[in-house]
Amino acid sequence: MTKTDNVVHDAEYYILYDQHGEKWEVEDRELDARLEALRKKYGTPPNIVHIMWDDMPFGDAGIPAINKIRGFETPNCNRIAEEGILFTRFYTEPACTPSRAAVITGRHPVRHGMHTVAFPIENGGLRGDEVTTAEVLSSAGYATAFYGKWHLGDLEESYPHNHGFDEALFTPYNQVMSLWNPQGEGANAVLGLVEENLKKDPYQIDDNFLPDGWILTIEGRKGETAREWGDTGINDYKAIDPECEKRTLEFIRKNARARTPFYVAYWPLMIGLIADPKKETVARSLLSEGFRKVDAFLGTVMEELKNLGIAENTLLVAHADNGPMTHNPPPGMGMAETIFRGGKSDYWEGGIRVAAFAWWPGMIPAGEIVGDMIHEVDLYTTFARLGGAMEQIPGDRVVDGLDQTALLINGDTHGRRDYNFVYTGPVLAATIKGRWKRVWVGDHPGLAGAAFYDLYLDHREQFPVLIPLLHTDLAFKRMRVRHEIWKKKYPDRPEKRGVPFTGLENPRPETERLAKPLVRDRSRLPFDPLEFIDFEPPWDDFDRDMPGG
Amino acid sequence: MTKTDNVVHDAEYYILYDQHGEKWEVEDRELDARLEALRKKYGTPPNIVHIMWDDMPFGDAGIPAINKIRGFETPNCNRIAEEGILFTRFYTEPACTPSRAAVITGRHPVRHGMHTVAFPIENGGLRGDEVTTAEVLSSAGYATAFYGKWHLGDLEESYPHNHGFDEALFTPYNQVMSLWNPQGEGANAVLGLVEENLKKDPYQIDDNFLPDGWILTIEGRKGETAREWGDTGINDYKAIDPECEKRTLEFIRKNARARTPFYVAYWPLMIGLIADPKKETVARSLLSEGFRKVDAFLGTVMEELKNLGIAENTLLVAHADNGPMTHNPPPGMGMAETIFRGGKSDYWEGGIRVAAFAWWPGMIPAGEIVGDMIHEVDLYTTFARLGGAMEQIPGDRVVDGLDQTALLINGDTHGRRDYNFVYTGPVLAATIKGRWKRVWVGDHPGLAGAAFYDLYLDHREQFPVLIPLLHTDLAFKRMRVRHEIWKKKYPDRPEKRGVPFTGLENPRPETERLAKPLVRDRSRLPFDPLEFIDFEPPWDDFDRDMPGG
Repeated sequence: MTKTDNVVHDAEYYILYDQHGEKWEVEDRELDARLEALRKKYGTPPNIVHIMWDDMPFGDAGIPAINKIRGFETPNCNRIAEEGILFTRFYTEPACTPSRAAVITGRHPVRHGMHTVAFPIENGGLRGDEVTTAEVLSSAGYATAFYGKWHLGDLEESYPHNHGFDEALFTPYNQVMSLWNPQGEGANAVLGLVEENLKKDPYQIDDNFLPDGWILTIEGRKGETAREWGDTGINDYKAIDPECEKRTLEFIRKNARARTPFYVAYWPLMIGLIADPKKETVARSLLSEGFRKVDAFLGTVMEELKNLGIAENTLLVAHADNGPMTHNPPPGMGMAETIFRGGKSDYWEGGIRVAAFAWWPGMIPAGEIVGDMIHEVDLYTTFARLGGAMEQIPGDRVVDGLDQTALLINGDTHGRRDYNFVYTGPVLAATIKGRWKRVWVGDHPGLAGAAFYDLYLDHREQFPVLIPLLHTDLAFKRMRVRHEIWKKKYPDRPEKRGVPFTGLENPRPETERLAKPLVRDRSRLPFDPLEFIDFEPPWDDFDRDMPGG
Repeated sequence: MTKTDNVVHDAEYYILYDQHGEKWEVEDRELDARLEALRKKYGTPPNIVHIMWDDMPFGDAGIPAINKIRGFETPNCNRIAEEGILFTRFYTEPACTPSRAAVITGRHPVRHGMHTVAFPIENGGLRGDEVTTAEVLSSAGYATAFYGKWHLGDLEESYPHNHGFDEALFTPYNQVMSLWNPQGEGANAVLGLVEENLKKDPYQIDDNFLPDGWILTIEGRKGETAREWGDTGINDYKAIDPECEKRTLEFIRKNARARTPFYVAYWPLMIGLIADPKKETVARSLLSEGFRKVDAFLGTVMEELKNLGIAENTLLVAHADNGPMTHNPPPGMGMAETIFRGGKSDYWEGGIRVAAFAWWPGMIPAGEIVGDMIHEVDLYTTFARLGGAMEQIPGDRVVDGLDQTALLINGDTHGRRDYNFVYTGPVLAATIKGRWKRVWVGDHPGLAGAAFYDLYLDHREQFPVLIPLLHTDLAFKRMRVRHEIWKKKYPDRPEKRGVPFTGLENPRPETERLAKPLVRDRSRLPFDPLEFIDFEPPWDDFDRDMPGG
C-alpha cells in the first residue's frame, strides 16, 4: 500500500486490495515511471482542469446518436470521447451540494454533514477542518483557482479562498438565485421578494418571514478579506459564467507562462431560470441552451491548452454533478431520464450516474469507453496522486476516494472500485457491488428485502427481484456491516453552522442584518431567535422509509 | 408525383408533398441517375437483404457506450453504424405480428386486421389479397426467399410461399413454441401440455380444453404443397435459426452466381425460452445470448457479400420488430427500456422505436447517424422503388409506406416522413408529428387532453403537458380527422379467419384434428363448435380507455 499508506479508505477497499494489491503495485510502478518521464519533459507535475456542470445524466453528452434524440449537439464532449475517455459508469452524489462537497473533499458528504442541498439563507457550510483538493495541491506547490457555482454554504470558513484556493469568484448558492430579482417576479415565479413590485397584502402581519438580504457572488483571494461581486440582479447573474470563463483562461495562461503547475475548478452556473426568447438549439430547453455554452467552453479550453503547448501535461476532467432535475423542474427545463431511471436526489442510477469525460492527449488512450465504476470522490485522490501530494491527505478520517490513475492512463477494466454506498441526505439508501444493487430503503421488515437489481439486465431498475439474487443477500449485509463498523472508528461529523456572510469588505445593510435576529426587541421573545441556526433538521431524514421498488 | 403516381398514401403525406414536391422530384431524378449507373455496372437492380429480429429498443445495438451498460457486445451492428446508417428514429408497430404484417405489406396492420399478436392456435392470418414485398419484387424479376419467424398466421393462404416467396422455411408462431415440449414442462413453465409427464388431475373433466396439435416449422416453395419441417421438440426448435442462416447464405450465393437480383428476408427466432446453462455474454440474459448470434450473422452476411463482389449492389437493412418485452418477460430475459419509456405492446416510444441499421457500401454514407423519422412500412415502398417495381404496388388501398430512398442515399435530414399514427391493436393510441406526440387514449373527456409530449425535452414521455403544447391541439385534431376521413374512402379490412394448417403434404393426425371440432358428437351441442373461428374478439379493443399519462 505504498501509494496510499497514509490514507484511510473505506473498509470495502481493503477487501479488494487483499485480492489485487500485488498486481496494482506493479501497475503503479509502471505508472510512476510514465508520470516521471512526463515531469522531466515539462518540468512540473501535470496541470488539472476540473469542469463540473449541473444535472446531466449519462448519455446527454458525448454520444452522437443520443444528441439526435435529445435535440442538442455536444460537439466538444463528442470530441473528448473521440480523443479521450467517455465514462459510462461515473457516479456522483445525488444532488448539488453533496456532490460538490464530495468531489472537493474526497469523502461522501454524510461524513461531514454536507449531505443536503443548501438554499439561501443556509446559515451553514463546509467545515473548516475538511481538507479540500485545493489545500492538498496548494501544499504541493500548485497554483489554485475556483470559479463558478460553489454552493457549499454561506459561512466565511466555507468560502473557497479559505479552503486552499489562491483566488475565487463564486456563488454560495445555486441557480435559484437567478429568480430572486425583479424580473423573477415576472417569470411565473410569484416570489413576493421584491416589495416594490407588489400590492400590499392586507392580511400580512409578519414582515420578517422572508429574507430581505442575500448575496449572489463573492470574490476572494487566499488570506484576504472577500468582496461581494456585482449585485443580485439578473444582469449580474448572467455575467457570472462569462466572467468565470475569462478568468479561467487567464489563470491557465498566466501559470503556463510561469511554468507553475496549476489546478483550476470551473463549475459553471450554466442555467438561469429566466429563459432567453432567442434559442440556439433544436431542443430549445433551459438545459440545451445552457449546456451549449459549457460545451463550447470545453472546446475553447482544449484549444488553449494545445496552443500553450501544455495539453500533454494537463488533465481535463469534465462531468456533471448529479442526474437531471426531473423532480420539480421549472417549465422548459428539458431534463429527462435519458437512459437510467431517476434524477437529481434519487438513489436510482439516474440520480447518480452522469455524463463524464477525461482528456489528456498522449497520456489517456483515445476513443476509450470506460465501463469501470468510478466515483467523483476518486478525483480527489487521483488528483493528489498526480500532483505528488498524497502525503497532504489527512490520515485521521475515512477518505472514500480511491486512486484511479491506472484507470485514466491504462483505460477500460483498469479501475479499482467495484462498490458504491449511495446516500440520499444522511440515509444509506442503496449499496452497489459490481453489477448488483441492493436498495435498503423501503425494505419489507421481516423479509429478506425484495429490492435487488442486476444492472446489466435491468439497468433502469424497474424490476426488483429477490430469488434470482438471493445469493447476494448475505454478501450485501456483510458489506454494509463492515461499512457501519468502520464508521464507529471514524465517526461522521456535522455540518458547520453559523452566521452567514461574514468576512466581507463591502457588506450591504441587508446583508449585515442577516447576522442579527429579525426582531425589534429581543427581550419580548421567550426564546433566542437565532438558536435555530444550530438545530439539525430531523426532516433531512425524511426518506428513510420511502418505498424502494 | 411521378415516382408514386399509382400509390395511394395516407392523407398526411400529401400535406408534405404540397410543400416539398418540387424539391423531392429534383432529388429523385438525381437518385435515379445514381441507381441507373449502379445498374449499368452490375447488370441488375440492387439486391435486398432484410434481417429483422425480436424485441430490441433503440440503443441496445450499434452504440459502444451502451454496450458497456447492457453487458453485451454488438460488434457487427457497431460496424454497420461505422460503415453505414444508424437510425435513431426508426419506428415499428408495437408487437411481433403487427410489425411483421406492416413491414411486409407497407401498411399499418389495422388496415388488414393483423393488429394483434397471434398465438397458437390462431385460426387466422394474413389475407390473400394483401400484396407483400415478395409479390412486388417477384413481379419485377427478383428471386425471393423467406427464412425464420413469420408469425403471420396458420392459414394456408397466409404462408409466405403463397405470398410471393419462391422458397420459405418458416414458423407460423413465435418463440413461445420453444416451451411447448416435454423440456418446457421442466422450465418452470407448468404448461400441462405433455400428458405423459403429468399426474392425472382427478378433477379434470374436460379433455378438449387445451390444444393437442400444432406445428413448429413449415417448408414451402411457390406453387407447391408445403411440408412440416422437423417436429415440435426443443432440438428441432434450436435447429431452425442455424438452418435458416445456412439457407440464407446459400440463397445469396446461388443468385449472385446466376446474376439474378434477389430479395431475402431472414427473421430469426433469436431467443428460446429454455436457457442454456453455458453463457457467452457478460449480461448472461436470454436477450444477450440470443442476439450475440444474430449480430455474428450480420457480420457473416457482410463478409459474404463482399467476397461475392456484390456488396456495392446489395442493400442490407437490419432492425428489431418492436421494443423490448418488458411486460411479462420470462425470468432472465434481460430486456429493458434502454432509453425510451415502454416496451413491446406500448404506444410509448419504447414500444415502437427500435435498433435499426442500413449498410450499402458505396451507396450509403458511412458513419451516418440519421435523426429523421422512418417507419418500417417505408421499407416496402423503398424496396419497390429500388427494385424498379413501384408499378406492382396496388393502387386500390392506402399504402402507409413512403419512399425513403433519398434518406438512405443522401442521409440525415433527407427523410420524407414527419408523422406516425401509432396503433396498439385496433386502437389509434397516439399520433406523432415531428417532435410532438399526442396520446389519445386515456383522454380526459371534456378537457383538451393533457397528454401532449415534446420528444426532445421529454423523450421518455414522463411529463405530459397541456399549456405549453396547446398550440398543437387543433393541429393534431385536424391531422387525425384527415386520417379518419381518408379511411372512409379506403376502409380497413378484417384479418382472414379459417381452418389452420391446410396445404401440407405430411399432416399428422393431431394436426388434421385441428380442422375438426373437438367433440365426439356434434349433434349433442346446441351451437356450431367451429363458429368461434369467424368471431372477431371485442377484447382486442381492451386498451381504448387505458390511461394516457
